[in-house]
Amino acid sequence: MVIPSLIECKRDGGALPPGTWAAIVRAYAAEEIPDYQMAALLMAVVWRGLSAAELTELTGAMLDSGSRLDFDGWAVPRVDKHSTGGVGDKTSLLLAPMLACCGGAVPMMSGRGLGHTGGTLDKLESIPGFTTQLTLSAAEAQVRRLGCALFGQTPEIAPVDRRLYALRDVTGTVPSVPLIAASIMSKKLAEGLDALVLDVKAGSGAFLADEKDALALARTMIGLGEASGVRTVALVTAMDRPLGRACGNALEVEECILALRGEGPPDLMAVTLALGEEMLLAAGLETDRGAARGRLVESVQSGAALRRLADVIEAQEGNPAVVDDPALLPQAPQRAVYTAPAAGIVAAVRPRAVGQGIIALGGGRRRMEDAVQHAVGFVITARPGDVVEAGQPIATIHARDAEGLEAGATALREAILIGSGPAAPRQLVSHRVTADGVEAIAP
Amino acid sequence: MVIPSLIECKRDGGALPPGTWAAIVRAYAAEEIPDYQMAALLMAVVWRGLSAAELTELTGAMLDSGSRLDFDGWAVPRVDKHSTGGVGDKTSLLLAPMLACCGGAVPMMSGRGLGHTGGTLDKLESIPGFTTQLTLSAAEAQVRRLGCALFGQTPEIAPVDRRLYALRDVTGTVPSVPLIAASIMSKKLAEGLDALVLDVKAGSGAFLADEKDALALARTMIGLGEASGVRTVALVTAMDRPLGRACGNALEVEECILALRGEGPPDLMAVTLALGEEMLLAAGLETDRGAARGRLVESVQSGAALRRLADVIEAQEGNPAVVDDPALLPQAPQRAVYTAPAAGIVAAVRPRAVGQGIIALGGGRRRMEDAVQHAVGFVITARPGDVVEAGQPIATIHARDAEGLEAGATALREAILIGSGPAAPRQLVSHRVTADGVEAIAP
Repeated sequence: MVIPSLIECKRDGGALPPGTWAAIVRAYAAEEIPDYQMAALLMAVVWRGLSAAELTELTGAMLDSGSRLDFDGWAVPRVDKHSTGGVGDKTSLLLAPMLACCGGAVPMMSGRGLGHTGGTLDKLESIPGFTTQLTLSAAEAQVRRLGCALFGQTPEIAPVDRRLYALRDVTGTVPSVPLIAASIMSKKLAEGLDALVLDVKAGSGAFLADEKDALALARTMIGLGEASGVRTVALVTAMDRPLGRACGNALEVEECILALRGEGPPDLMAVTLALGEEMLLAAGLETDRGAARGRLVESVQSGAALRRLADVIEAQEGNPAVVDDPALLPQAPQRAVYTAPAAGIVAAVRPRAVGQGIIALGGGRRRMEDAVQHAVGFVITARPGDVVEAGQPIATIHARDAEGLEAGATALREAILIGSGPAAPRQLVSHRVTADGVEAIAP
Repeated sequence: MVIPSLIECKRDGGALPPGTWAAIVRAYAAEEIPDYQMAALLMAVVWRGLSAAELTELTGAMLDSGSRLDFDGWAVPRVDKHSTGGVGDKTSLLLAPMLACCGGAVPMMSGRGLGHTGGTLDKLESIPGFTTQLTLSAAEAQVRRLGCALFGQTPEIAPVDRRLYALRDVTGTVPSVPLIAASIMSKKLAEGLDALVLDVKAGSGAFLADEKDALALARTMIGLGEASGVRTVALVTAMDRPLGRACGNALEVEECILALRGEGPPDLMAVTLALGEEMLLAAGLETDRGAARGRLVESVQSGAALRRLADVIEAQEGNPAVVDDPALLPQAPQRAVYTAPAAGIVAAVRPRAVGQGIIALGGGRRRMEDAVQHAVGFVITARPGDVVEAGQPIATIHARDAEGLEAGATALREAILIGSGPAAPRQLVSHRVTADGVEAIAP
């Protein structure tokens, strides 16, 4: 295998011959391809893309570079949800216990926050004692026992993806639909799933802001999932403002606990139920959409989902008492109310600015190795379209110190735009995508 | 300086802010930028190109990463010729002594062959004893004494270019007009020149086969040269067939010796004289084109240029007797005549196939570290348009062994196409390019 010729082929817009991507992944895993050649190849892929056959082969090879969860012979359908990432995006913490209560098994392997977006692992680790580092066999056993496990990518899962992701992060080769799809799907296909629901974010706070790109990513991932025998469905949901009110790790866990008590913000619940419905239907646990929604609502109203979350927390060494007393979560020493600087209509709550604000407060990371402050963040009550008076409280800042409060206020001034005309936020759930095509959802 | 953001800027088609390329070159020289980030950046440049300002800054920074030849206060005009590379392209060995005989000083720093093209250093090193490794001060002294020196890029000259070239070679990032121009000009501008004539090859055997690309490269290099106060002119010459008859290191030196005796093939002499004229005019050594040509022809007919070549060979530790007895050059143990497989008109002599044939014989290199067999190669007497009979001798193969003869014949079958219609070779010298524009040359 002559690597420069392969790079040249991709650079010039060609597709690599069958078997080549698998050989590249094996050679890279064996450290026979240096990072500088892989970096040039990745940039050529950002430029030229991958054919469907190349993408399938690359994804399969990344998957095969590691182990998989093994549920062979177990009758309970496995179903997971994956989000392309956003701000305030906390549906995983709700959906895992809710689906488990509805008869599904959710082996939910999640990631950390990077850049302006949050990550499920960071949120979970704000629960005192909680560990996300399960071995594959411990995760399997917990899924069989409790119906769900919330854990991080283990070293055995798609190890080439881990190395490629780290390389892409520092070489400007992240925003490529096929590379994103291969990275996500090589991990998700390792979970031993029957069904997968993708929450593809669109809007200024999404990695792919453009709706067209979001739809392309959805279709690409669905193709990869279905080709591996996993029923895969995607919803395109709004990320032109944060989801829910809480933005920041412990604050989001608290909001999830409140949501599982039936006190969740309407937008968070709407997206959660839409995704949950798709999960129940795709997993074959329900055939009727209305009935699916009913079972999900019941799992919350009965308190079953909250109790299941407590069981999961306890199983993963966290303090389950947080579900009864969220004040046991880490608390920021400084809090301040943020008020509307002028009267008007909230034109936008910009998720990137909010996410950057969380980083400024110490609650996010710029590099993978950064430590995260769990308690800091924002609770933003203003929504696009709200009419506000000057001086009206529209958010709370949670910070380590007075300096943090200042940085938080600066971020919110950047994030929350107040205008005079009507706001035009994206439709919360705009499209449903399956292997059969794209369906626009009625407002 | 956040390298990933700079890579992203270039990836997205932007121009890096003033000062950035200079900082990148300094940081890369200090090994503060890893090769994997540089490789991704180079691929983004192949994709998106460089603005004129970026290119000037990059070239200047590469030049400034090393030393320059110093002829300050010396009245003799320095002039060099640079070719973008081809097969049988041996004009350097003729022009350096011819120009020296006409009153110019030629500090000719050359490169090695790579891929299908030959390199001046490899050709010179086929002369027994000849060294191309001169120190900068030795090269300067020899130019002052003999009017020319033929030497390799010393470690002090544009060291960042050396590292970047090695990286580009293995990462598929060679064919980029701005990167090629920056690499060439960072070295040529280190020669302390008053004038530079570029031989930009076009045709299937050139690195940039397309005439449009060749013209773009010419204009780009002229811009860089003139901006540094070096009078720069380019000729676009044909590389859709080898130049001259001999292809292979010692064989080409022999052809040059014969040419300086007045027995050169017409195409080689035409290109050499065209380039030499431009060199004399650009250096201000002559104002009349006809007079320039007359002086060049006289340098050959008088035997002065051949004697000057012998002096240079002696000064650089080679055996000067080769100019009187070319049989002192290394001789291939096996020779075979190659005959036309059919009657017809020679449609093409494809330079890439000839160059690949030389590599197959051991006379070229696939990697920079490969050793080169100096004696092997081809002498191809057939030219496009020639009418040949089946079985007529049209070339000679020079090889190490019988296997080589076989490989050589295979290569020539691939290279020399015989058809029935008229051939349509490129015009030998098709365009003259200056800072004022492009001038098509009458056939």
